[in-house]
Amino acid sequence: MKTKVSITEKHTLFDERWHPKIIARLDNYDVKIAKVEGEFVWHKHDDEDEFFLVTKGQLKLELEGRDDVVLDEGEIYVVPAGLPHRPVAQPYAEIMMIERKGVINTGEVGGERTVVAEEL
Amino acid sequence: MKTKVSITEKHTLFDERWHPKIIARLDNYDVKIAKVEGEFVWHKHDDEDEFFLVTKGQLKLELEGRDDVVLDEGEIYVVPAGLPHRPVAQPYAEIMMIERKGVINTGEVGGERTVVAEEL
Repeated sequence: MKTKVSITEKHTLFDERWHPKIIARLDNYDVKIAKVEGEFVWHKHDDEDEFFLVTKGQLKLELEGRDDVVLDEGEIYVVPAGLPHRPVAQPYAEIMMIERKGVINTGEVGGERTVVAEEL
Repeated sequence: MKTKVSITEKHTLFDERWHPKIIARLDNYDVKIAKVEGEFVWHKHDDEDEFFLVTKGQLKLELEGRDDVVLDEGEIYVVPAGLPHRPVAQPYAEIMMIERKGVINTGEVGGERTVVAEEL
């Protein structure tokens, strides 16, 4: 990459919810940020782990067959490949995600909340 | 992973400088944190990009043939595979790194500052 990236600065450049933006790349992985609010959809990623770091607010990760994980600022969780999960922001959060290039935000379920992450 | 990870809490568990600790795994990648102070050694990783996020303090990345990159809290830089670099903390920083499993902290140069990252 040519220059450093400030997470705070990047967050001033967009306002959509649940629309991940790519801010850096690491080998074959995308580093993304998103603004999230309310509930997302249940989904899973069969072959890819999904890294979450909360940088503002609070994010609950509902996990099938496991206790919910509630992340505050500076907290990390990696959702294992294949585990159905639903992110819920209470009420709003800013998050950083890292996942393999090409992973779809809605996993195997698709639907109207599917978006392709763009570079910011 | 079984539980969430707090970056702040993990930093209370060790005090060594330049000794990365693994706090999470993502596919075949390790998520590490480190406390760093002063200068490290020039080195490179031929085949792996190296992700840096500063969570406290300031880190300068000296890069061969390029301008230095100075990262403050909340700022990210990915050192491209093959690029010689030297991290310098001014005077102290706490950082999160993500890199492929097995990457050695001193890259191709080795030497006395080589350590194997342990799980924290």
